[in-house]
Amino acid sequence: MPGIKILNDPIYGFVMIPKGLILSLMDHAWFQRLRRIKQLGLSYYVYPGAVHSRFHHAVGVFHLMSQAIDVLRQKGVAIQKEEAQAAQIAALLHDVGHGPFSHVLENSLVPLEHEQLTLMIMDALNRELNGSLDLVIEIFKGNHPKKFLCELVAGQLDVDRMDYLNRDSFYSGVVEGTIGYHRLLTMMDVVDNRLVFEEKAGLSIENYLAARRLMYWQVYMHKTSLVAEQMLELLLARCKKLGRHDFASPALDYFISLQVETPESLDRSELLMQFQKIDDSDIEMFLKCCGSSNDALTSYLAKGLLQRNFFKIHMQKIPFDDAYVAELRSNCIKQFNCSSAEAEQMVHLSKMEFLAYETKHSEIQIRTKQGSIYNASDCLKLDHLCNVEEKYYLSVPRELIGVS
Amino acid sequence: MPGIKILNDPIYGFVMIPKGLILSLMDHAWFQRLRRIKQLGLSYYVYPGAVHSRFHHAVGVFHLMSQAIDVLRQKGVAIQKEEAQAAQIAALLHDVGHGPFSHVLENSLVPLEHEQLTLMIMDALNRELNGSLDLVIEIFKGNHPKKFLCELVAGQLDVDRMDYLNRDSFYSGVVEGTIGYHRLLTMMDVVDNRLVFEEKAGLSIENYLAARRLMYWQVYMHKTSLVAEQMLELLLARCKKLGRHDFASPALDYFISLQVETPESLDRSELLMQFQKIDDSDIEMFLKCCGSSNDALTSYLAKGLLQRNFFKIHMQKIPFDDAYVAELRSNCIKQFNCSSAEAEQMVHLSKMEFLAYETKHSEIQIRTKQGSIYNASDCLKLDHLCNVEEKYYLSVPRELIGVS
Amino acid sequence: MPGIKILNDPIYGFVMIPKGLILSLMDHAWFQRLRRIKQLGLSYYVYPGAVHSRFHHAVGVFHLMSQAIDVLRQKGVAIQKEEAQAAQIAALLHDVGHGPFSHVLENSLVPLEHEQLTLMIMDALNRELNGSLDLVIEIFKGNHPKKFLCELVAGQLDVDRMDYLNRDSFYSGVVEGTIGYHRLLTMMDVVDNRLVFEEKAGLSIENYLAARRLMYWQVYMHKTSLVAEQMLELLLARCKKLGRHDFASPALDYFISLQVETPESLDRSELLMQFQKIDDSDIEMFLKCCGSSNDALTSYLAKGLLQRNFFKIHMQKIPFDDAYVAELRSNCIKQFNCSSAEAEQMVHLSKMEFLAYETKHSEIQIRTKQGSIYNASDCLKLDHLCNVEEKYYLSVPRELIGVS
Amino acid sequence: MPGIKILNDPIYGFVMIPKGLILSLMDHAWFQRLRRIKQLGLSYYVYPGAVHSRFHHAVGVFHLMSQAIDVLRQKGVAIQKEEAQAAQIAALLHDVGHGPFSHVLENSLVPLEHEQLTLMIMDALNRELNGSLDLVIEIFKGNHPKKFLCELVAGQLDVDRMDYLNRDSFYSGVVEGTIGYHRLLTMMDVVDNRLVFEEKAGLSIENYLAARRLMYWQVYMHKTSLVAEQMLELLLARCKKLGRHDFASPALDYFISLQVETPESLDRSELLMQFQKIDDSDIEMFLKCCGSSNDALTSYLAKGLLQRNFFKIHMQKIPFDDAYVAELRSNCIKQFNCSSAEAEQMVHLSKMEFLAYETKHSEIQIRTKQGSIYNASDCLKLDHLCNVEEKYYLSVPRELIGVS
Repeated sequence: MPGIKILNDPIYGFVMIPKGLILSLMDHAWFQRLRRIKQLGLSYYVYPGAVHSRFHHAVGVFHLMSQAIDVLRQKGVAIQKEEAQAAQIAALLHDVGHGPFSHVLENSLVPLEHEQLTLMIMDALNRELNGSLDLVIEIFKGNHPKKFLCELVAGQLDVDRMDYLNRDSFYSGVVEGTIGYHRLLTMMDVVDNRLVFEEKAGLSIENYLAARRLMYWQVYMHKTSLVAEQMLELLLARCKKLGRHDFASPALDYFISLQVETPESLDRSELLMQFQKIDDSDIEMFLKCCGSSNDALTSYLAKGLLQRNFFKIHMQKIPFDDAYVAELRSNCIKQFNCSSAEAEQMVHLSKMEFLAYETKHSEIQIRTKQGSIYNASDCLKLDHLCNVEEKYYLSVPRELIGVS
Repeated sequence: MPGIKILNDPIYGFVMIPKGLILSLMDHAWFQRLRRIKQLGLSYYVYPGAVHSRFHHAVGVFHLMSQAIDVLRQKGVAIQKEEAQAAQIAALLHDVGHGPFSHVLENSLVPLEHEQLTLMIMDALNRELNGSLDLVIEIFKGNHPKKFLCELVAGQLDVDRMDYLNRDSFYSGVVEGTIGYHRLLTMMDVVDNRLVFEEKAGLSIENYLAARRLMYWQVYMHKTSLVAEQMLELLLARCKKLGRHDFASPALDYFISLQVETPESLDRSELLMQFQKIDDSDIEMFLKCCGSSNDALTSYLAKGLLQRNFFKIHMQKIPFDDAYVAELRSNCIKQFNCSSAEAEQMVHLSKMEFLAYETKHSEIQIRTKQGSIYNASDCLKLDHLCNVEEKYYLSVPRELIGVS
Repeated sequence: MPGIKILNDPIYGFVMIPKGLILSLMDHAWFQRLRRIKQLGLSYYVYPGAVHSRFHHAVGVFHLMSQAIDVLRQKGVAIQKEEAQAAQIAALLHDVGHGPFSHVLENSLVPLEHEQLTLMIMDALNRELNGSLDLVIEIFKGNHPKKFLCELVAGQLDVDRMDYLNRDSFYSGVVEGTIGYHRLLTMMDVVDNRLVFEEKAGLSIENYLAARRLMYWQVYMHKTSLVAEQMLELLLARCKKLGRHDFASPALDYFISLQVETPESLDRSELLMQFQKIDDSDIEMFLKCCGSSNDALTSYLAKGLLQRNFFKIHMQKIPFDDAYVAELRSNCIKQFNCSSAEAEQMVHLSKMEFLAYETKHSEIQIRTKQGSIYNASDCLKLDHLCNVEEKYYLSVPRELIGVS
Repeated sequence: MPGIKILNDPIYGFVMIPKGLILSLMDHAWFQRLRRIKQLGLSYYVYPGAVHSRFHHAVGVFHLMSQAIDVLRQKGVAIQKEEAQAAQIAALLHDVGHGPFSHVLENSLVPLEHEQLTLMIMDALNRELNGSLDLVIEIFKGNHPKKFLCELVAGQLDVDRMDYLNRDSFYSGVVEGTIGYHRLLTMMDVVDNRLVFEEKAGLSIENYLAARRLMYWQVYMHKTSLVAEQMLELLLARCKKLGRHDFASPALDYFISLQVETPESLDRSELLMQFQKIDDSDIEMFLKCCGSSNDALTSYLAKGLLQRNFFKIHMQKIPFDDAYVAELRSNCIKQFNCSSAEAEQMVHLSKMEFLAYETKHSEIQIRTKQGSIYNASDCLKLDHLCNVEEKYYLSVPRELIGVS
């Protein structure tokens, strides 16, 4: 098609990318970099199909945004051409600040959240493009007066979540994550600049929230990927402590060596330059090299990750017994000749929390046939999704408990 | 299930892995390494969903082999427990000798075909396992007296091809590659130790061969992934020539530096040791580093790959005009200040050939309702698939022809 | 395959039917009759794809039962060959007593529940087959000592429900009804002759129950199919009252004319003979003929059904206002010149109730990793599914309220 | 959505029907009647899932037409609002003249082709709607100057065929019928008012034609549905001959009794009135009643159909031996006490012909990158699809050859 580049997506069929600003952003190094970042980090250890990239997710979010805009316009909502394009770009770039394996570095190496990095990158791109992204940034920050555009990018029922549920479910094979995105898109409308959903979407919204909860526990917080992630963090922390990381690529080396006294002291332009160079491959390479490290703990952790020989992990709904944990840690110090701080990391206690539906801030809006607007929690069956769920998690090196 | 590990596959649902020898091979470093090798190399530049790993493909081939054995046993074919397990393992390991991006290194860096490497790795594993893989190797080499086991592993209609068509079609979104694998499996039988298909599978077999042809031209030989592959080869060759590869990981460095005088001179045990360490991440890392090389050609190629700025490529059914090519090459030498040999690589002429169905060697066998056995080419509609198809291909750096 | 007949199912791929008793039952007139009965009655007015037959559902239930038995045997559960076959047949025949459109006649014409009819038909078949179905009937009645076989046929998580959710979701296109049946089947086991599910299936069970609730309100109780059903009942009642049903087929005529003083007075063998002859086509034919009836109400209702011109219907969570309803009914009497009893049917009030998970009787059993057995309601998140949900429903002929 | 009615389609997701003329035609008795006509006639005897209605197919064709128009407009093709609507309606109504089981009556009872009936019905509707369908009829007849609109409705690669391949493949479970309709739609364009496809769709077009051929032999001409159809025709012919059809509905009675001396003698308005009333249910009812006919042949045929006890059927690529057939027929006369004409029907010889791609009339047009237009047969690999394939078919009552 003239002016259109077509991308094949096993989920949506063909995705149409308008040439011009949008395509040029997709071809930019910042965006191409997302090809080398797995959407689901280390989940492929559990779900071997889940190796899809954040690049593909971003394209999917862009596609759903385009569809949402079409639906809204058909319902008579005024969206200017520039606003539509800005919303599409905000969708496309919303995750551009993700580091290797999407979340790992975020917690341990990079001293910034991915949303902050996304914004820094958008700003950098905006300078490069002489302000073409002003509107995009306004939407991304949630400041645009057409609030619904912001809500489509980031809300409790936005095109980001719709795409990742579709995509993660498709690639992992966890079919229970299926949502009725066709119905959700079609039932959107705008009232007073806020996004609303027609009452007829009620069951689909309940299902969407339940699907997200299921994916959270079944996939995102699957204990095997959690423990892999933890081992990787341990390994990086160990290298940081030892000050030995000759196996690291220059960019990874930068992040391992980075000392942040105060947020202000950070050289953000240097950080951005390094950040553009780092992706999954830096970590994968590093892991392989660490397998032959002469630090016993380093090579123990690296080999565990490479050969899928993970710590034993327990997950339960009640806290673990303190004395039991203390004993394991004391054994750990002996066994691995490690510091007590490291033992705390290896015999790792953690508490996970998940709230499927948030009622404190911005709720999903429902419009009844009569035209009244309600918060979803007032008219749908969501009680069971509005409380924080907790799980406790304990990881233990297999050497401390016997192999199973 | 006791004695069973379950893997989720979006294509087949649940795959059952028996604990014991099979699972321990799957957990071995040689097999886990396949997680870091993309099944379709650089095709993700065209089909962003096609980032599935050779690991997942190998598991799928194993699964189809298990299904095939079930079908044959139900039809009364005698397959001993050891034979079944050996065939399953042969299926699992059939691609273990693949290098980075599945085919790239094979053509340019590693001086061996992936089948030879597979065999070397199987031999190494067999030594490690005190001969447990003797039967596996016999089947893989095609020497087992129950010929049909060998044909299931490697033939014109084997479980390898069935899985890769299923999988590559699923992940790329090229739905025309869909095959009726349920029907193909169900219609298998054995006569005189040879694999045969019941006549009722005729249309499905024709469809399977046509689907493979379609995938060949639409996906495997897509011009964009071909040109990406070619640029990568060029880059590696350039580095080899310059003798400068300080950005390379130790394993990649080994392969770039490798000089093979005669096949006999190769130190195979060293090669295997290095080969186990190399995968997609070595190449991806290398690419990123080469982007800042001070050799202009090196950084030109690396950046092109990173930012999806590829050579222009033409594909046609007739040869290209010699004079036109010569002129392009002469311009290339001027423009890039490169050697004439390099210009030949950059303005690259190539001829691709594909034969959808091979009648010279071992044909697919068809059994009629009356019990006669025919070669597929004698009773199915395959004429159009039995001739070699050729396409000519010319790549040209965009600088030589103007950007499009 | 020798001894096997293969049926193609878009949901499961190939279904294997063993020749012998099972296939001969499938070819029996009682079972073939299910081909002419739509699984979802009049739902096709809303979901045009939902025209699948009860025949196909029954085959699917049979298939899932076969799969469940395989899983249980692999886990070491002893199931004799005869027991397995009996359970498969019980699955196959569990719905054989369904009348036209699956539920319509049940409520208005046939004075028996479909379960009773199923049993009567099983008894008749058993006599014909000289007692071959003794074990089948024992399982169907829930009397077999291997309780889990009975629970697989009829329980809160049985193969019947698994298939109908899979199938109704597939054919209607309501993707939110998708369940993880692979996982559910694989996580089955038997303890003390009761069916249990491994704790790891917890989220899948929650999802399965939620999917069933969604399908209940979104599909099975969709207001448009409810109102179509109600209009059909009204039509049949009208004809019964008028004593004029010359358009009816002999079998339908029998049921319209049937007067049941007391259950004992029923001539059950006559009823069964007539029941075998009646299916969707009798009703469809009748409808078309009634369109030209000279009774105004009869032809009004018939035409409404044929041309998709339905009563207006309201559904809400609180009861309707009595005075409003009374006024509508009084208008109805005038407008249609009908009896007050008929006006009550046309301006029809109804209350629907649904309980997604039943805790009073036999609960789903969950086995923890430690081996303890719990009721699902004690260890899963089911609170929101354990209360009866109610909806109120009011239908009104469009003439009484203005067309919309 | 305002002005839009949404229909759920498991294949395309949501289908948008504009209110107004299009929706009112869909709600018309002529169109609603298609709900009661199975798209694939008696194929459900082989593929139990294939019970989808011609109604749903027609909606699908409408949907693909809407998509095609969108694509063409995006490419700059001028299509007026009225033309678009007319093309959509032509797509919707293109099959409205189909009788019971789509083809059965066409061959034996109704003395007109379904295309003629479609036109008669369109004319009737046009009178009813005061000429609103003038443009529709012009397109349907192939007379519209924008030829491509006609070609989209009826050509070698039209939206009708695209939908029926998608749909029949989906509902039957014959996955090999999958076509890349997304790609085909996207590659459409118009040159000189003719529909053309971009060269890049070449492989998809080859695949589409091959898929249609596969579906033809595997589904549409499956021997079991052929023999069922033949038995039904025999039954109707027998009743016609005997002049006894008291079981028939009034409409079926009309068609059985119909004597057509000359085409001119036909009372077309009476025929249309009766035709509107007849659908699958008339035949299904009739069959059930004929099971208790006192004419032996009638009840023999009816019972065979009801209980899936079909004639034995042979299909082969060479003609059958005349003497063998003659002997079977002579046995048939004795066994069934039937006329020699009936014996010829029961021991039925037939020759089927299929041409996958027609080169004599209007070919699929391909546009190269350079802008030249070729016939598909000149630039794609279609040779194997351009010759008529023949199969010979012989049906024999089982009594004449022993049961198998």
